Amino acid sequence: MSFSGVFPYLVSPVNETGGIMTGVLTDLVEQLIAAGVHGLTPLGSTGEFAYLSQEQKRHVVDTVISAARGRVPVVAGVASTSVSDAVAQTEAMVEAGADGILAVLEAYFPVGDAGVETYFTAIAKAARGRPVVLYTNPQFQRSDLSLTVIERLSHVDNIGFIKDASTNTGRLLSIIERTRGRMEVFAASAHIPACVMMIGGVGWMAGPACIIPRQSIALYEAARAGNWVRAMELQRPLWRVNEIFAKYSIAACIKTALDLQGFNVGPPIAPQQPLDEAARAEIAGVLHDVGAL
Amino acid sequence: MSFSGVFPYLVSPVNETGGIMTGVLTDLVEQLIAAGVHGLTPLGSTGEFAYLSQEQKRHVVDTVISAARGRVPVVAGVASTSVSDAVAQTEAMVEAGADGILAVLEAYFPVGDAGVETYFTAIAKAARGRPVVLYTNPQFQRSDLSLTVIERLSHVDNIGFIKDASTNTGRLLSIIERTRGRMEVFAASAHIPACVMMIGGVGWMAGPACIIPRQSIALYEAARAGNWVRAMELQRPLWRVNEIFAKYSIAACIKTALDLQGFNVGPPIAPQQPLDEAARAEIAGVLHDVGAL
Amino acid sequence: MSFSGVFPYLVSPVNETGGIMTGVLTDLVEQLIAAGVHGLTPLGSTGEFAYLSQEQKRHVVDTVISAARGRVPVVAGVASTSVSDAVAQTEAMVEAGADGILAVLEAYFPVGDAGVETYFTAIAKAARGRPVVLYTNPQFQRSDLSLTVIERLSHVDNIGFIKDASTNTGRLLSIIERTRGRMEVFAASAHIPACVMMIGGVGWMAGPACIIPRQSIALYEAARAGNWVRAMELQRPLWRVNEIFAKYSIAACIKTALDLQGFNVGPPIAPQQPLDEAARAEIAGVLHDVGAL
Amino acid sequence: MSFSGVFPYLVSPVNETGGIMTGVLTDLVEQLIAAGVHGLTPLGSTGEFAYLSQEQKRHVVDTVISAARGRVPVVAGVASTSVSDAVAQTEAMVEAGADGILAVLEAYFPVGDAGVETYFTAIAKAARGRPVVLYTNPQFQRSDLSLTVIERLSHVDNIGFIKDASTNTGRLLSIIERTRGRMEVFAASAHIPACVMMIGGVGWMAGPACIIPRQSIALYEAARAGNWVRAMELQRPLWRVNEIFAKYSIAACIKTALDLQGFNVGPPIAPQQPLDEAARAEIAGVLHDVGAL
Repeated sequence: MSFSGVFPYLVSPVNETGGIMTGVLTDLVEQLIAAGVHGLTPLGSTGEFAYLSQEQKRHVVDTVISAARGRVPVVAGVASTSVSDAVAQTEAMVEAGADGILAVLEAYFPVGDAGVETYFTAIAKAARGRPVVLYTNPQFQRSDLSLTVIERLSHVDNIGFIKDASTNTGRLLSIIERTRGRMEVFAASAHIPACVMMIGGVGWMAGPACIIPRQSIALYEAARAGNWVRAMELQRPLWRVNEIFAKYSIAACIKTALDLQGFNVGPPIAPQQPLDEAARAEIAGVLHDVGAL
Repeated sequence: MSFSGVFPYLVSPVNETGGIMTGVLTDLVEQLIAAGVHGLTPLGSTGEFAYLSQEQKRHVVDTVISAARGRVPVVAGVASTSVSDAVAQTEAMVEAGADGILAVLEAYFPVGDAGVETYFTAIAKAARGRPVVLYTNPQFQRSDLSLTVIERLSHVDNIGFIKDASTNTGRLLSIIERTRGRMEVFAASAHIPACVMMIGGVGWMAGPACIIPRQSIALYEAARAGNWVRAMELQRPLWRVNEIFAKYSIAACIKTALDLQGFNVGPPIAPQQPLDEAARAEIAGVLHDVGAL
Repeated sequence: MSFSGVFPYLVSPVNETGGIMTGVLTDLVEQLIAAGVHGLTPLGSTGEFAYLSQEQKRHVVDTVISAARGRVPVVAGVASTSVSDAVAQTEAMVEAGADGILAVLEAYFPVGDAGVETYFTAIAKAARGRPVVLYTNPQFQRSDLSLTVIERLSHVDNIGFIKDASTNTGRLLSIIERTRGRMEVFAASAHIPACVMMIGGVGWMAGPACIIPRQSIALYEAARAGNWVRAMELQRPLWRVNEIFAKYSIAACIKTALDLQGFNVGPPIAPQQPLDEAARAEIAGVLHDVGAL
Repeated sequence: MSFSGVFPYLVSPVNETGGIMTGVLTDLVEQLIAAGVHGLTPLGSTGEFAYLSQEQKRHVVDTVISAARGRVPVVAGVASTSVSDAVAQTEAMVEAGADGILAVLEAYFPVGDAGVETYFTAIAKAARGRPVVLYTNPQFQRSDLSLTVIERLSHVDNIGFIKDASTNTGRLLSIIERTRGRMEVFAASAHIPACVMMIGGVGWMAGPACIIPRQSIALYEAARAGNWVRAMELQRPLWRVNEIFAKYSIAACIKTALDLQGFNVGPPIAPQQPLDEAARAEIAGVLHDVGAL
């Protein structure tokens, strides 16, 4: 199975007692598929994986898989500091029926390349043939994968994708050049999707696609068609969505935007704080300007 | 209950299948109490809290409490990104019989002062009167407590201690001056214990005390007696232990040192890598020089 | 006067007694103009502005202007920590006949937006109508211009350009969107030129263009023509030049490459160290692969 | 000649046209010597070395040397990115009659240990036997000296001192242990002077001593006498001066404080901005509380 296109990073709606709000999550999945997204990614950064118990994570993924009904692939997040826990999480996601794994290394102490390789190779094995997407985010994660280890991991059979959430677009081109034919690159919200598509990326996995799915699909299609003039026309106004996503705390921002769009997904998980009224108004303004409200 | 003196940060010996090696942990506790330590701190950074499941953490703390048999207080680590999980962990540690809580905020997204205050206040309440020690380590944790929020938290009844593992000793004096009478300061391994004692600290909580307990007690007693000439005589050679602790990965370093001393505590949890022979030899040399081997 | 296209950041060849080697600098200018570059930029980072006296800087610029004989514009670097010194440098460059100013703020203590605005506005005034290019490089300079201050400076009449040497290509799009019609963006070597052109940039100012001028011009022309397929074909192999430029110390790298190409520009200014043989061989390999050796 | 004790980092009073205000600088020197300081250090960070021309620097040092009339040693700052310029500056300071050199490496591109060693060794030679004080400040300077290179430089005959302005007090102990008998350590304002004295330091070189000279001398004398109880009594209130020095921009802070004390030293050099009224009031409050206003 291969992945390409727009994969929204889904939020994880959690109520006051820690229960997953399955109704609104199902509605969101339905709307995103209707808008034409190519896949769904629960338990990315936007999905607050770092704030959920294993039970909550499983419940989120079960809900998304049920709602998707096989219409698009579901790539479920796995994140840990330890190999054994990462393997257990991966096995649970495979059992749940995930089509692929988004794999994150959550270091506490620094980990050298040998440790990084061990970690992701163990996840790949536990994924039993399902594709693994490496996810590295130097802003929030205490590890950042070196080009050397990315190149090495690209030789593992089912490690076929990477999402790099640095702001360094040149690094993506370095990855593409080093792993051609073995690994494909997804853009993150910190990169300009049109640029990443032009240099050889295959799509993007990002939180903003949750709130502007139709607009994201239109941009993706223009880029896929090689119509870069059209792609940039669509890209320019959409960049403001990425800007507010970077300005405000990520999960809080997307949950606020979804709430404005009528999806009652609740606040970010405490001790994260909900956004204030000024932020809410700024987000509403941007959504309005891009036709998403 | 009040805490002062030398509180070793205990390692967490884990075997290949993830089981806690209770025998060697019990032996280590026995040796440390025999050497005169004033308390024990399982599940600090050295205790690899970031790599253990809740079940493993509980097993470590149960083992330490059983081994200590009430002779010295046990301050158990609690670390999470979310308020609800931190409260659950705290309740488990209280139930296990911990005498105090070492509380860590493991941020993924940045958290403002309001969120920080919410988090630690919730832990303090769940500790039901047991003393809480704030632990902030800007090197490994993605949050660092501001002086403002530390001052505010010092007014919470049972938040009475802080361990600050920055390398910034001046910051400790700023904390001491702002919280006098409400909060006491423990040194971390990145500070010179003799200095922190002189500016008003009450002891130290740190990994190196696991491997040089007698030497640590002698230093503490000289400092407590105000015999600073003697304290510095003892401090100078011991600083090399802190230097190697900072040079090598923390848990790997202490586990290696304990192994050299005859405590078979196993390697650090994967994907952390064991130290190589050169590192092992350097650690052995330092231990030998300070009379710990 | 407006600037666009490929502006190599020239090296500053300095002999053992601190003299400017005018012969080789003149030869280099001749070759670059013959290759079709659109302008010349002495005293950028690659030009080691941070290592030269005012007299040396003036000598470099005089030499470049003489050699260029008005065939292409010369944009001379001005860099200081203080307003008064920056103004004096600008006046000297205007007197020397520079067609534009590349302006750098070299902070020691942090400077707020008001100070930044004062600094660049004073340079703009001293430039007496000549265009000013803002140059911000967060890797080497101790200031980084905020979007707010860039937007404000774009309203100053003759501040019409910016070169941003962060690795953050999304930031360039944010600048373009905020300053449209008032400020144009040049790429730096840390960005992919083809991407910056596609999002609306007007060219690039960078060290690598010194050593691959023909290849740079071909890439620029494909991009200007909107032939993005061709642009990316040309871009891919050239990216390796930017990669080695980022890997090795910048001035040392370009001086080594020029030496390999037959321009005896000498070593970087001490205490910078010349590159070793392995680096020299790697650079030679890359130059060979892109047809520049 | 050996240095120890309290060496205020002097401000550089500059008027609107760039002239050195020699009258007020002479008055300040007179007052500091009367208060008992052990030496004077023009052209440190507080002295805004990074904002002055060579002529202005020379004028400051000439003024200080004239005013001091040999009563205390004058250690003049030398700071550059290049070896040749640093040597020229050193020769000028020796010619001016400086008793020692405070040496700073102002890197633009990163410099390896070999380059660092070359740089400081060249200054030491140019100082013709006068003592050299290494000054490293990771907060403002783009280089930080490794322990390895400090150890190596301690073997150069007249490199006998170091001022380390990191906040890492443990690093000072590491330096002391590695260079014993060859190099002495001065505290910077980011360290607690009483602590640095206890671990073996010989005094401090810092901006705050300009505004609290008597209080600094009293603290130094208590520490020299080994009266640590008294030293800490004096230290506690004085730490607030270091705290405001760290909170506000350094030169602006000390110039404001001196202005409050009746020394009309003018504002910091543009584009640095003068402090606002709230900051001025906070500084006045602290000065008042420590008996310096």
